[in-house]
Amino acid sequence: MTHTDIHLLLTGDELMSGDTVDSNSSMIAQSLSAYGHSVVEKVTLGDDRTRLIRALERAAGVARILIMNGGLGPTQDDLTAELVAAAAGTELVLHPEADRHVREWCAARGIEPNEANLKQAWLPAGASIIANPRGSAVGFAIELGGTLILTTPGVPGELRAMLPEVCERIVAAIGGGQSHRVRLQTFGIGESTAQARLDEDAEPWPESVTLGFRAGMPQLEIKLSADSESVEVDQCRQTLERLIGDHIIGEDDMTLAGALQQVLREQGKKMVTAESCTGGLIAAMMTAEPGSSAVFEAGFVTYANSIKHSILGVDQQTLESEGAVSEPVVRQMLSGALERSGADIGVAVSGIAGPDGGTEEKPVGTVWLAWGTADDMHTLQTVLPTDRAMFQKLVAAAGLDLIRRQLLGLPKLPHYFSRRAI
Amino acid sequence: MTHTDIHLLLTGDELMSGDTVDSNSSMIAQSLSAYGHSVVEKVTLGDDRTRLIRALERAAGVARILIMNGGLGPTQDDLTAELVAAAAGTELVLHPEADRHVREWCAARGIEPNEANLKQAWLPAGASIIANPRGSAVGFAIELGGTLILTTPGVPGELRAMLPEVCERIVAAIGGGQSHRVRLQTFGIGESTAQARLDEDAEPWPESVTLGFRAGMPQLEIKLSADSESVEVDQCRQTLERLIGDHIIGEDDMTLAGALQQVLREQGKKMVTAESCTGGLIAAMMTAEPGSSAVFEAGFVTYANSIKHSILGVDQQTLESEGAVSEPVVRQMLSGALERSGADIGVAVSGIAGPDGGTEEKPVGTVWLAWGTADDMHTLQTVLPTDRAMFQKLVAAAGLDLIRRQLLGLPKLPHYFSRRAI
Repeated sequence: MTHTDIHLLLTGDELMSGDTVDSNSSMIAQSLSAYGHSVVEKVTLGDDRTRLIRALERAAGVARILIMNGGLGPTQDDLTAELVAAAAGTELVLHPEADRHVREWCAARGIEPNEANLKQAWLPAGASIIANPRGSAVGFAIELGGTLILTTPGVPGELRAMLPEVCERIVAAIGGGQSHRVRLQTFGIGESTAQARLDEDAEPWPESVTLGFRAGMPQLEIKLSADSESVEVDQCRQTLERLIGDHIIGEDDMTLAGALQQVLREQGKKMVTAESCTGGLIAAMMTAEPGSSAVFEAGFVTYANSIKHSILGVDQQTLESEGAVSEPVVRQMLSGALERSGADIGVAVSGIAGPDGGTEEKPVGTVWLAWGTADDMHTLQTVLPTDRAMFQKLVAAAGLDLIRRQLLGLPKLPHYFSRRAI
Repeated sequence: MTHTDIHLLLTGDELMSGDTVDSNSSMIAQSLSAYGHSVVEKVTLGDDRTRLIRALERAAGVARILIMNGGLGPTQDDLTAELVAAAAGTELVLHPEADRHVREWCAARGIEPNEANLKQAWLPAGASIIANPRGSAVGFAIELGGTLILTTPGVPGELRAMLPEVCERIVAAIGGGQSHRVRLQTFGIGESTAQARLDEDAEPWPESVTLGFRAGMPQLEIKLSADSESVEVDQCRQTLERLIGDHIIGEDDMTLAGALQQVLREQGKKMVTAESCTGGLIAAMMTAEPGSSAVFEAGFVTYANSIKHSILGVDQQTLESEGAVSEPVVRQMLSGALERSGADIGVAVSGIAGPDGGTEEKPVGTVWLAWGTADDMHTLQTVLPTDRAMFQKLVAAAGLDLIRRQLLGLPKLPHYFSRRAI
């Protein structure tokens, strides 16, 4: 046994049938990583008595910590307490604290606890409970040989609420300190480009700082971590600011829309959108953020050409001669939207999202963007040959970023689009 | 060894760090279920030679089929071929077919194959390849003791393209027939309500047909499956049509927006949206579907009150006296949108998405919807006390469903909203 090995055992028929995608183990791994720990082996099984007990006994022989997830609920399929008791050679006993929790949970919902509810208070003798602030099923901890078993519920919201205590117990057992981490959200630059710029940089990267990337869509997260709070992390952050600073939109879970909202608030400005190919997605991304009503004035989804004319005042002649996907049309869309809404700044997009509608001259993926103010308007044409959903996401995200860049006086285009501009 | 046990072994450091949520095993499970097969045990490990070979040897002793996923790529971390060869006591040899595939793949991209590319053509002696139509790394199959090992790449798009051949090989080894399945997409009814209506129904449910639910957001999928094509599945489908037919929006992967697009096309009608609290999400859902330009005319995101007045013509007096979240305002929003767009039918929504902005009279989650045509307009007030994202999703989905119901002459409200209407 390696003295600090952490194993994970997940249970649930829904995990095996493919009906549920397991996001719990990612949540657990991320919580552990803040303490410098990681899961070295993960086993997933259905609610199958024989297989579960075999896996439990096998892990108990080699792991220092075994986190079990799932199987704590009220139904007969929920086997965790029973099987841990069997593996530990002990009995299920009514745990007073768990019993009180279940009764209080039921009382708060105005229901009489039934047998199924109360089953959740029967835990292996000798177990201590891990509090569940969200649900009726508590978790529990018990030592089995040299292995500390920690059980947690499969409901993600309940697991999330219990992970701090789970981590505390792990740190108490095997140590581990809160490592120093900085998470930066970026847009418009890929992992390989970011890495290449760092590799080419004259300043050496300190060994004590780990650099990590996590590709989201449309954002890329860059993680800096070190065992302890260190000046090196701050130095690395400054290096990133120097090399790709205009792509960094914020820290932690900052979104493009959130970053843009913040800049608009700081500058006391309001925005408007005029969308064709993104069909309202730019507006929806902005308004998904709480507080958007302070900065978002209006959005126009002018899908039909006749609407581009009647609502935004785009010239019919121009629509006919240039086509809806053209520079003069997105300029006129933006001008019309700014004028009609009274907003300070905005973005207009028109493109061919596909899969149909492409021509030789304007293939699927072609898009024109206009952004800025009435007096300071910019345009860009690019081709993003990808599927419809990805095309819409990328164009919408670019629209938000282009306004952000203009407001902050940053370079006009992010790397990704400057490479592709036509 | 149970003669048909299928195990799954996933590898990749990104799966252990929590940076990637594993959706591959769900995809594999769903493909297998079409043949009546399921995975009984799943082990996930990092790119760790010792642990991988131990897991491989352990599974090879008990599984009839072992699907490995990940570790086929060009880098040094990609260990699958090497470790399977070691476990099988054989060598890696240059596989001519795989070599040709890698060279053709590189040539199609105009690049010279390098050592890393060509590493992917070295497979355990005796392996047969599983074609990869999407990527450079082929999979392979090899017998190890009584276990058939099938290796697949971790890139989801490549895995998806290879699963048909993987399933064929499994069926060739252990049998299994394409089971008869019907997947129905529903909206506005929960699993417990659907189940209760079936339980109360006079007609007995045939034992040969398995009923399954898969909760999506905002849709609920209902699955009917039987070992063979059977009249019972059709009967069960008819039972569902009879009991909850107005909630069934379509088969397979049908979305609300897709179902609405279909009805609008059939009736030759066009729609418009006027959104406040959903901020463009209804328009974005409609236009996410290919072909939406044939039925979607325009969308107005009138977030500010002044815009509700200036763009849609909502009476300023009414906005002041009734507030933006009120029946007369959503009526006037819809009237204005229909008039300005020339569309046949539409939906307007105004509500308080939260987390701020609620009052005692109109708490967070309050929403007014208006839908229909200029001559046949309906309204509904409801309260959906949930988080902002869920509120926006539910209201947007309801908006689409209410138009669908009106066009099809179905009961005005789905179960979920008829219970909550104020």
